[in-house]
Amino acid sequence: MRHSCSLAALLGAALLAACGGPAGPTAPAGNPGASGGAGVASLMKARGLSEADVTAALKTYVPSGKKDEYYTFASGGHGGNLIVIGVPSMRILKYIGVFTPEPWQGYGYGDTSSQEVLDGGKRNGKDMTWGDMHHPAFSETNGSYDGQFIFANDKANPRVAVVDLKDFVTTQIVASPLIQSEHGATFVTPNTDYVIETSQYPAPLGDTYADVTEFNDKYRGAMIFHKFDRSKGRIIPEESWAIELPPYMQDLADAGKLVSDGYAFCNSINTERAWGGILEGNPPLESGSTKNDMDYMHIINWKAAEALVKAGKTTTIAGMKVISLKTAVDENILAFTPEPKSPHGLDVTPDGAAMVVGGKLDTHATVYDFAKIKALMDAKTYESRDPYGIGIMKFEDTIRGQVEIGLGPLHTQFDDKGNAYTSIFIETKVAKWNWKELKMIEKISTNYNIGHLVAAEGDTVDPDGKYLIAMNKWALDRFLPVGPLLPQNFQLIDIGGEGAGGKMQLLYDMPLPLGEPHNAQMIKADKIKAFEVYSPVGIDPITKKPDPFTVEGGKERIEKKDGVTHVYMTAIRSHFTPDIVKVKQGDKVALHLTSLEQAHDATHGFTIDSYNLHASLEPGKHVNFEFVADKPGVFPLYCTEFCSALHLEMAGYFLVEPK
Amino acid sequence: MRHSCSLAALLGAALLAACGGPAGPTAPAGNPGASGGAGVASLMKARGLSEADVTAALKTYVPSGKKDEYYTFASGGHGGNLIVIGVPSMRILKYIGVFTPEPWQGYGYGDTSSQEVLDGGKRNGKDMTWGDMHHPAFSETNGSYDGQFIFANDKANPRVAVVDLKDFVTTQIVASPLIQSEHGATFVTPNTDYVIETSQYPAPLGDTYADVTEFNDKYRGAMIFHKFDRSKGRIIPEESWAIELPPYMQDLADAGKLVSDGYAFCNSINTERAWGGILEGNPPLESGSTKNDMDYMHIINWKAAEALVKAGKTTTIAGMKVISLKTAVDENILAFTPEPKSPHGLDVTPDGAAMVVGGKLDTHATVYDFAKIKALMDAKTYESRDPYGIGIMKFEDTIRGQVEIGLGPLHTQFDDKGNAYTSIFIETKVAKWNWKELKMIEKISTNYNIGHLVAAEGDTVDPDGKYLIAMNKWALDRFLPVGPLLPQNFQLIDIGGEGAGGKMQLLYDMPLPLGEPHNAQMIKADKIKAFEVYSPVGIDPITKKPDPFTVEGGKERIEKKDGVTHVYMTAIRSHFTPDIVKVKQGDKVALHLTSLEQAHDATHGFTIDSYNLHASLEPGKHVNFEFVADKPGVFPLYCTEFCSALHLEMAGYFLVEPK
Repeated sequence: MRHSCSLAALLGAALLAACGGPAGPTAPAGNPGASGGAGVASLMKARGLSEADVTAALKTYVPSGKKDEYYTFASGGHGGNLIVIGVPSMRILKYIGVFTPEPWQGYGYGDTSSQEVLDGGKRNGKDMTWGDMHHPAFSETNGSYDGQFIFANDKANPRVAVVDLKDFVTTQIVASPLIQSEHGATFVTPNTDYVIETSQYPAPLGDTYADVTEFNDKYRGAMIFHKFDRSKGRIIPEESWAIELPPYMQDLADAGKLVSDGYAFCNSINTERAWGGILEGNPPLESGSTKNDMDYMHIINWKAAEALVKAGKTTTIAGMKVISLKTAVDENILAFTPEPKSPHGLDVTPDGAAMVVGGKLDTHATVYDFAKIKALMDAKTYESRDPYGIGIMKFEDTIRGQVEIGLGPLHTQFDDKGNAYTSIFIETKVAKWNWKELKMIEKISTNYNIGHLVAAEGDTVDPDGKYLIAMNKWALDRFLPVGPLLPQNFQLIDIGGEGAGGKMQLLYDMPLPLGEPHNAQMIKADKIKAFEVYSPVGIDPITKKPDPFTVEGGKERIEKKDGVTHVYMTAIRSHFTPDIVKVKQGDKVALHLTSLEQAHDATHGFTIDSYNLHASLEPGKHVNFEFVADKPGVFPLYCTEFCSALHLEMAGYFLVEPK
Repeated sequence: MRHSCSLAALLGAALLAACGGPAGPTAPAGNPGASGGAGVASLMKARGLSEADVTAALKTYVPSGKKDEYYTFASGGHGGNLIVIGVPSMRILKYIGVFTPEPWQGYGYGDTSSQEVLDGGKRNGKDMTWGDMHHPAFSETNGSYDGQFIFANDKANPRVAVVDLKDFVTTQIVASPLIQSEHGATFVTPNTDYVIETSQYPAPLGDTYADVTEFNDKYRGAMIFHKFDRSKGRIIPEESWAIELPPYMQDLADAGKLVSDGYAFCNSINTERAWGGILEGNPPLESGSTKNDMDYMHIINWKAAEALVKAGKTTTIAGMKVISLKTAVDENILAFTPEPKSPHGLDVTPDGAAMVVGGKLDTHATVYDFAKIKALMDAKTYESRDPYGIGIMKFEDTIRGQVEIGLGPLHTQFDDKGNAYTSIFIETKVAKWNWKELKMIEKISTNYNIGHLVAAEGDTVDPDGKYLIAMNKWALDRFLPVGPLLPQNFQLIDIGGEGAGGKMQLLYDMPLPLGEPHNAQMIKADKIKAFEVYSPVGIDPITKKPDPFTVEGGKERIEKKDGVTHVYMTAIRSHFTPDIVKVKQGDKVALHLTSLEQAHDATHGFTIDSYNLHASLEPGKHVNFEFVADKPGVFPLYCTEFCSALHLEMAGYFLVEPK
């Protein structure tokens, strides 16, 4: 921000003027007055704040008791969790446990409900206790976020999760045994009929074995369409299906919308079909996979594919209905158009009529025209075919044009004024350009190595503009040292035109303390309608229904039935009833625990020391534990959440008499 | 903040004046000028900011590239992690995995080094995969934080952890099988000779069994003195020892310093020895344990106790040398003085000469005089003895006085001007009072239900003043809704006298997105000297030494030896070598992986898909995995941390041929 009136001078002048001193632009800056307001200029001086800093501070500060305007939901990368952030304050409101068990939330620490969710994500019968989450996606209605659900993927152990935004709880994890790696997930169709998950590193489909030397013949990719039932809040695996893809590395995907509804688009890299083998004398994959100038955008007519599935034109692999590559070619539901160079981001414009692709070794944003692509595909006008018979369109016939925006363009978001914002990795900048006029506007630097970026509702049919977050991979010198493993840096940028001269203005640097966010989505705050408490008491958060073992106040008891000791327990400030539980070593225990609280924020926690069990008991919540009392001894049980003045006294004993 | 000059008016006036308009205090507020600076008044209006908000925003905003002044390290409660926060920006810089495995850091996800740390925390041979961390403590030199280490406790599964501040990595967890529950931990002696851990809910010592009806006779507490060797950076269990305590609920503890060096102090509650039994017709523990007007401060002469240990006057229980209650009484190393009512916080003043106690059902801060206590203890002047023979001093003879500060006082911190700051739970306020003059000064409201509070170096011999954080248990209406489980709320308060009229000023509300912080410590930023990278390459972060299996660039290889397939692998942008690893189903695999990077922030990650392994590879770090290739198939391996433009291509395959 540069202009002729120094803000510091102005403030100093104003304070002097208003408080009885000499007025005018020449008065000295930073003269502290007698009272609080008079301290502003001196604060600027004392804290070394520039004029731009002052406006940035005032644009991001959310006073006590006031609320942020937007939520941003960011993936937690290899932390395996989902990160909820308030905008513009950039305060983190919650880490939601998704693929990784998390004890504060009592997620995966012994209660049967959350364990069942995590068990849904087993691969090969093996527990997966973390995930590499990349791309969360809100549920949509008519191409707009509806605030009901958010989906997330696991690149490392291919899985898709459903998080319910009524209580910010993960309610389902679905494993995808068809594929061994993924990346282009999650993306939803405009009414959330499907959650799309696309493979990345090819492998034999259905978890079978073939040597890597059989790569071209036996390794494959796939795009999975997970059927979502909004009324149930669940993915329905038996109604999900997939399309087999060639052994390229499929990358990011997006669903068509409005005019392109019914289509899905997906980048690919490594159409060279390299697979490394450095010790074997091959070039590293990074070289072998970047020889071609062009890779292929995959264009998929998913509505036609869905009809094929309904017509039974599928084979079943690892329990999933799969449209074979041959069928996909024969039925013309899959086609290619070339993409320059090492494409990474693929983003459909708000009107659904164009697709923007960034090639990470390129300098352009390439804007494809859906109408042109559809016409060519409908007419089967292909310039050539790939080794698997897939038709390849002529690049020039599919684009509107290209805009020179900088070296290493990746991902694109949109505002409400026809502008696109593209992250430029190698230059570590955001480029603002007009996607209708194909015209470059301006760039802003980011710190450092920007990956994805997210604008307010910036990938919907009706973006909001206003705020943009640059999701930077490196932080370097931005924050206090925390050892060799640094946070990422989210930078909030004003794109509302309130920066000097309508330019983008950097507002805030926000360190990410846990996990590596890849992508994020930003939603208007009033779209999310979350519960304050579970009501009536006894709700299972996974089903959102009263649990069959709900315990009424006054009916607490311990019963032995069919060899199992059932403990029917309640929690209310400030005691558990029963508070003394006696069993014999080796006994099977089923502990049913209901919070009788209905006051907002009156949360309890529950543990039995050294038994490695923990539950968070939000008001009205019910949990069930099932375990064997294998260790004899005296084990305190207590409330782990500071709930009241007599919280420390909310305790008892689990007594296990030795055999 | 209230004063006669409206800041909004001042700003409007100043901008008009400086830019050529009419000047003076009567000019209209909020008139936006043509350029950026001119937008300040309109920003205040548009965002609804008060004058106090503006100064708060400017006091807390840290511009991009500038650093915070302090670190705050807060416990993560039942999240089991440690939270690192920058002050005054209140941005979270890092979550450090301590008791809970954390995949982003590669902590407990298959590498042998971090697994060994976690294994140190097993109880009864059982993995404990979470913890309930309450009270972190920095290492101290002469009673001042030295920035070298931080210690943390697990209330649920009694354990103490050591975190090395050279790399913010947990390097040791020590289980305490003597006790079954703890709370008064961790507290260090002034030169970090010992890390103190005090039991909370009594149980038979050494993990033995006795029915709760034998509570008075067989249940006990203990204070453990974990010997710390600073040069090794490790607790030395064989040099640690404990003192047996009566079956009260010992609560918070603190070590003496300066004049009181050599003594330790500990609160207790439930001297009634209630143990609940609601279904058995007893009163709930919350009632049974709060009948007495006074409980007992435990005064322990630990230097004399240490001499007893050296003289062999101990018995060994669960591998630990324990001074029995009888010996403690006989040797006069333990004495009591009464404390009103349901005491919770106990904090030694900076000069070491007084102890401040807050009783959570009381209205006073009670200030004890160490010199009086020592004189009475030396002379064995006890008014009475408890059922276990421990001498009880006369309350009135041990105090300097009491200050009426409000209902439900808990914890106290200190500034550099003789002021004490005490959290008042039931009133949900901070009381500022002078601990030398025993005079109440002022209170400030917090939102809501304050527990602990932390001032800059506020429990050392030389507090800094300046900043105070109120650690509030409930958030209620402070932030955007995130479902029934809400964040806690840290409120930053200016105690530097820069608030209006030198009063405390609320600066910032900060939500805690994961975990429930109990206590925290705030350290001046320049005291922490963290590594930027591990150097030379091949360092094991736990030992901080080159790993015996370090892999040199160019010497990557796969070797079968003694039935184990050893994979010697390196990582550098942007490939792993080898990138293809072939084994047979059932093979034992030892994977040795060195990052050859030495550039700051050039971190890689490593996983083999569906094998539930993950490492974070900071520059120069080495990790070892040992596992059985039990699942046949084709498993991509890849870099999980976005490291370069060709990060996605940093991949290979782990091929497991079926038997």
